[in-house]
Amino acid sequence: MFIIGERINGMFRSVARAIADRDEAAIADLARRQVEAGAHALDVNTGPTEGDPVEVMRWLVDTIQAAVDVPLAIDSPKVPVVEAGLRAARRPAIINSTTGAQAKLDAMLPLAAAYNASLIGLTIDERGIPRNAEARAEIALTIVARALEAGIEPDRLYIDPIVLPVSAAQDQCAAALKAIPVIRALCEPPPRIAIGLSNVSQGTAHRSLVNRTYLVMAMAAGIDGAILDPFDQELMDALRTASILLNQDIYAENYLRATPVA
Amino acid sequence: MFIIGERINGMFRSVARAIADRDEAAIADLARRQVEAGAHALDVNTGPTEGDPVEVMRWLVDTIQAAVDVPLAIDSPKVPVVEAGLRAARRPAIINSTTGAQAKLDAMLPLAAAYNASLIGLTIDERGIPRNAEARAEIALTIVARALEAGIEPDRLYIDPIVLPVSAAQDQCAAALKAIPVIRALCEPPPRIAIGLSNVSQGTAHRSLVNRTYLVMAMAAGIDGAILDPFDQELMDALRTASILLNQDIYAENYLRATPVA
Repeated sequence: MFIIGERINGMFRSVARAIADRDEAAIADLARRQVEAGAHALDVNTGPTEGDPVEVMRWLVDTIQAAVDVPLAIDSPKVPVVEAGLRAARRPAIINSTTGAQAKLDAMLPLAAAYNASLIGLTIDERGIPRNAEARAEIALTIVARALEAGIEPDRLYIDPIVLPVSAAQDQCAAALKAIPVIRALCEPPPRIAIGLSNVSQGTAHRSLVNRTYLVMAMAAGIDGAILDPFDQELMDALRTASILLNQDIYAENYLRATPVA
Repeated sequence: MFIIGERINGMFRSVARAIADRDEAAIADLARRQVEAGAHALDVNTGPTEGDPVEVMRWLVDTIQAAVDVPLAIDSPKVPVVEAGLRAARRPAIINSTTGAQAKLDAMLPLAAAYNASLIGLTIDERGIPRNAEARAEIALTIVARALEAGIEPDRLYIDPIVLPVSAAQDQCAAALKAIPVIRALCEPPPRIAIGLSNVSQGTAHRSLVNRTYLVMAMAAGIDGAILDPFDQELMDALRTASILLNQDIYAENYLRATPVA
């Protein structure tokens, strides 16, 4: 499981403050602690910053890279902000995200090709969010096909089947799970599949419980990665346990015999 | 999810003592508390009792039925013990279990037919425990076909794909999960699928974490029921959350807005 840490996001008040103050130590600390907690890559989102988002993205990438050496997921809907992040990134980055909408693909695919970046593709298009697994797979196929045309192989593509809040759209949680094996069967090798996890628990009273339960189900269904909060210890314990039970983690011996985590 | 409580089993020392003492209050208490905790049915296993197991099974069934009114899973490898339990049961019971071995099917299918019982069918046969999903499905098909011949429809059959301890056979946990959708596709309507959960965590340091993680994955894969410990509150919370996320529990509104469980 490829874990992208979600915490460097201007939507969090403390991060917004760190950005406003250009507080390098605060951002570096968030970066370091996420990697220590198990993140393999870090999402970078300026949030609705008051400053120039291009400059803020560049500062965030520089600041994070001074602290840790992991791939970054450049998270913005704005092309110039994404490009600023890609240009500043030392390692090949991940564009977060494109959708299946033509205009979005037209903008993001050339960037991914030019910067040798991976790409997260959300299964949304001009018609909005699909209501079932089949429509999600159909949009995924559009993204995969357009990516191939642009020279981006499926192993550089993470399809995100769109996880909606269970509190708002209960049936859509199951629909996203059902889409996962369908998307895996679209081509050979299959595209990778990643979910933005925390959205599922928006508006619920037990956010960590809902997040970790959904992550484990999505892992059983076949995801390769997730954007999540690596500081949630129960979530990370569930992730590790699921990896072992799915026979994906070959270093299970010590873990199985270790003293209880909780 | 159909929940069969596992706690009335002579393998537990306290239950063995209650059986030896014919302590009706202790057994009634275990029965009542499991049903209060969410069990829809109760497993009944005499364990390696020193007394006559036929008489012990009869006493257990009578004692449990004096306390609660739920179906019982009569859990014994011995035909006379199973028959004693079925005869004493007021509601149609569940035979736990047959396998795909011919001699076992020859013994248990007529009992299920005669007592209008449901039947748990383990995907084992004369050759032992299969090592992959396909061999599990093959044995499941034998059980389904033989059951149909005996007049037992798939909705009275629970196929158990055999969950082995992750500490002993790490790859087999994934194999059992993989078998679940294959078994569901065997016939229409499909047989039900249930797992004996607690086995998965034998020999691990984090039994509850391993149990609940595997249960959630098996639910995502498509099980209909499980034999488990309803006193494990974190397990039951995970089960309820997974039911909601799979859109199987339509009473989610209150739960989602309730105060945190933990």
